[in-house]
Amino acid sequence: MRISSVVLAAGHGTRMKSALPKMLHPLAGKPLVMHALSTAAALTDEPPVVVVGYGEDSVRKAVGSTARFAVQEKQLGTANAVQAAEGLLGDETGLILVTYADMPLLKSETLHHLVEMQLDNPGPISMLSVVLDDPHGFGRVIRGKDGSVRAIVEEAVANPEQLAVRELNASAFVFRSEWLWPALRMVRISPKGEYYLTDLVEIAVSEGGQVRAFCTQDPTEAVGVNTRVHLSEVEAILRRRINTAWMLAGVTMVDPATTYIEPEVEIGRDTVIYPNTWLRGNSRIAGNCVLGPNTMVIDSQVGAGCTLTAAIVENSEVAAMTHLEPYSHLKGECSGKME
Amino acid sequence: MRISSVVLAAGHGTRMKSALPKMLHPLAGKPLVMHALSTAAALTDEPPVVVVGYGEDSVRKAVGSTARFAVQEKQLGTANAVQAAEGLLGDETGLILVTYADMPLLKSETLHHLVEMQLDNPGPISMLSVVLDDPHGFGRVIRGKDGSVRAIVEEAVANPEQLAVRELNASAFVFRSEWLWPALRMVRISPKGEYYLTDLVEIAVSEGGQVRAFCTQDPTEAVGVNTRVHLSEVEAILRRRINTAWMLAGVTMVDPATTYIEPEVEIGRDTVIYPNTWLRGNSRIAGNCVLGPNTMVIDSQVGAGCTLTAAIVENSEVAAMTHLEPYSHLKGECSGKME
Amino acid sequence: MRISSVVLAAGHGTRMKSALPKMLHPLAGKPLVMHALSTAAALTDEPPVVVVGYGEDSVRKAVGSTARFAVQEKQLGTANAVQAAEGLLGDETGLILVTYADMPLLKSETLHHLVEMQLDNPGPISMLSVVLDDPHGFGRVIRGKDGSVRAIVEEAVANPEQLAVRELNASAFVFRSEWLWPALRMVRISPKGEYYLTDLVEIAVSEGGQVRAFCTQDPTEAVGVNTRVHLSEVEAILRRRINTAWMLAGVTMVDPATTYIEPEVEIGRDTVIYPNTWLRGNSRIAGNCVLGPNTMVIDSQVGAGCTLTAAIVENSEVAAMTHLEPYSHLKGECSGKME
Repeated sequence: MRISSVVLAAGHGTRMKSALPKMLHPLAGKPLVMHALSTAAALTDEPPVVVVGYGEDSVRKAVGSTARFAVQEKQLGTANAVQAAEGLLGDETGLILVTYADMPLLKSETLHHLVEMQLDNPGPISMLSVVLDDPHGFGRVIRGKDGSVRAIVEEAVANPEQLAVRELNASAFVFRSEWLWPALRMVRISPKGEYYLTDLVEIAVSEGGQVRAFCTQDPTEAVGVNTRVHLSEVEAILRRRINTAWMLAGVTMVDPATTYIEPEVEIGRDTVIYPNTWLRGNSRIAGNCVLGPNTMVIDSQVGAGCTLTAAIVENSEVAAMTHLEPYSHLKGECSGKME
Repeated sequence: MRISSVVLAAGHGTRMKSALPKMLHPLAGKPLVMHALSTAAALTDEPPVVVVGYGEDSVRKAVGSTARFAVQEKQLGTANAVQAAEGLLGDETGLILVTYADMPLLKSETLHHLVEMQLDNPGPISMLSVVLDDPHGFGRVIRGKDGSVRAIVEEAVANPEQLAVRELNASAFVFRSEWLWPALRMVRISPKGEYYLTDLVEIAVSEGGQVRAFCTQDPTEAVGVNTRVHLSEVEAILRRRINTAWMLAGVTMVDPATTYIEPEVEIGRDTVIYPNTWLRGNSRIAGNCVLGPNTMVIDSQVGAGCTLTAAIVENSEVAAMTHLEPYSHLKGECSGKME
Repeated sequence: MRISSVVLAAGHGTRMKSALPKMLHPLAGKPLVMHALSTAAALTDEPPVVVVGYGEDSVRKAVGSTARFAVQEKQLGTANAVQAAEGLLGDETGLILVTYADMPLLKSETLHHLVEMQLDNPGPISMLSVVLDDPHGFGRVIRGKDGSVRAIVEEAVANPEQLAVRELNASAFVFRSEWLWPALRMVRISPKGEYYLTDLVEIAVSEGGQVRAFCTQDPTEAVGVNTRVHLSEVEAILRRRINTAWMLAGVTMVDPATTYIEPEVEIGRDTVIYPNTWLRGNSRIAGNCVLGPNTMVIDSQVGAGCTLTAAIVENSEVAAMTHLEPYSHLKGECSGKME
């Protein structure tokens, strides 16, 4: 079945206190929006549709050709934002995956489970949920006796019994396309003057349609970025994920908490990384190297068996078995035996 | 109403294992005693009274003109220490705020709440309490049916029911001045040969006076420094507070756990700080800078849009838009376009 | 009573994904196997017996003369590994202490308690146990009404009641020597083709022998290293232990999480260590120094009152009161006033 993806990236992000649109704040070396985009892109054959609004021009420029663009003219809520994609996707049949650009920790594999759940669902919606110790600020997922979702109740209007529910709306949805577009027109404006995507659950249920929820076991997937404090928390979680994967693949890290590796970097087996080391951009590190402490490698190639202590290597190639002196700074050079 | 402040700083601090008095150990770049002093000073019009004892001369020198001094001649307990301030404050009417110099994480706003509670209290004492998961070593706050405090029971003499209480004495007090000084003379010596300030609660209650407790929601406020392990824990909490405030104000920190910013530093919006960066003293960083990793700025001015990677800048001025080479070390210089 | 020690170090460690045997991966600057060896050596008069297997030659070379060697020819399980030591220890009477080389956080004082428990035990075995929040993967310790151990039940074969037990096998044992060697021959091969040391508990109990368990209060002692993620976790715990000990002894650390001190280093009182500082090998730092941030000292002597900011000192001597310029790199030099 055809799967299309809509990534919502129109928000202002005023709590970032920044001249830069929230969606462009860097996370692990890439603009925030690019993380949700590449996660969504893994599920679909065609480029995702990014709904832009605030800072449209700069977001378009950063995203480039990796996505298609729809514009939300006014900030009228999430249902209105999805509606902006109707012009591009309204004629398709299949599934529409909706995710948020400010939730960069959602995993492709989780979205894959969500899509599979919806493929099996006679109803129009499958949604992602999560169980958190602190449910503050999240909508509660109310399930019926058959396990299907009856409603998402926002915290502000929940009764005490609903407030006690720990299964929460994690803000990722898969909709049946033919159902989605007409249903969006049925969402009514909220007292705050916005159209909420979560109202679609109630609409589906009132029609007798089944709504299912897939509950992720990883609570970090539900973390959203609204302030720079959140951004730093998300950066730390992403760092832990990346570093854990490299350690399990055969790279030693003396202190993964202070080892900063961007997602595109590659590292060979039995390389040992000492604390406060930063590997950035499209760097390739071969095996059996010793990097750090206090080493930065940026968009560079490092051959096998190198020792780089307290050195900075930018846009350079370092030949195998090279030992760089501390406080070396290579910039656009070839170093070591290659010379 | 007139509010006076007494900060107890006479203790030896033998568990610090140091030639330096505990009160002078540096925390976030300032002597320990200065943190409690500036917190207390925010509540009062006149300089706080610091009660000094061990290492009196060096503490006086460090504190300088920011406080008045009273001397506790012998280490005879906290009630005796407060009594040392009677010569300076005994004739005043109003409120006396008593805090401890080795509790640097107490906030001015919390003391403000405590003072407001006492302004409303017909009785002579309002005290600070806290709820901790691990109550080990704290006195239990025993409340009566009307919510007023009946006693502070030390752990050593508490019965099982009292030991189970999780509301604890957080060691900050506001006293009605006219009541305090005569009451101090009623405190009896303990089996250990000390006079305890907490005995005042029992004295007030036995007279029929009401004791109230304000329970802080931030457990870190109750952390005291007795060893260098505590000092490092307090340093980490203070770091988190300072960094969180800057992030919420519009500064990006890639890894706030390894970003060290002293309290007097100022930083402009949209400056990005990479890990292992240290901003010290009276440094002023403008907006849109990129600092770190591995950068130190000490008592310096950095203009807007600068990039300082792996550099040390001491007592210097760096002009706007300057890009310092890695491993630069400025010392008492003007750098960049100003030259 | 004579106490001999057997340290099991024959495993392959395939999950390390490494060309290096697991036992030789560095932890706090020393091969993994050396930590368990020096812990065990503190309990015995003669060198421990290391049972080697995978990577035998390189493990022998790393361990050198600090231990005696026994070889497990095939990886036939832990009972079989201990049996390999019979040739060296089979004629002795006394106690045999068995520990695992991939559990480097076990403390000598804990083993001492275990030995004392066995000295008092009429039965043949005393074992170490631990209570963990997450018992996943551990064997459950089943005690009888008299408190003695009835069995260690592996997770895979435990019933629900047994699974709920939180006292777990922490994999350190003291055996009565004369009982151990014949008992090992009674262990039957498991369905997986291995002989398990834990089967000895059942054998002892079936003979009417008493098995006792000493339950450590420090859950970190039970952490084993099977992947490089575990290795980094163990490194962090060891770092915390070493740094806490130095802070309590009178050394200030501004950020112990990023202060890396190898076990053989010595540091004088009132030295202050700033973040991201690394002290390695046989370094000796005198008192009243200021080290870091970003300083490395390797196999060097640093005199009292030195200031080393952002410097690297290797195989050198730095005279008292020396102030090294940032980005200094000493290598095999004498520096400061000595010159």
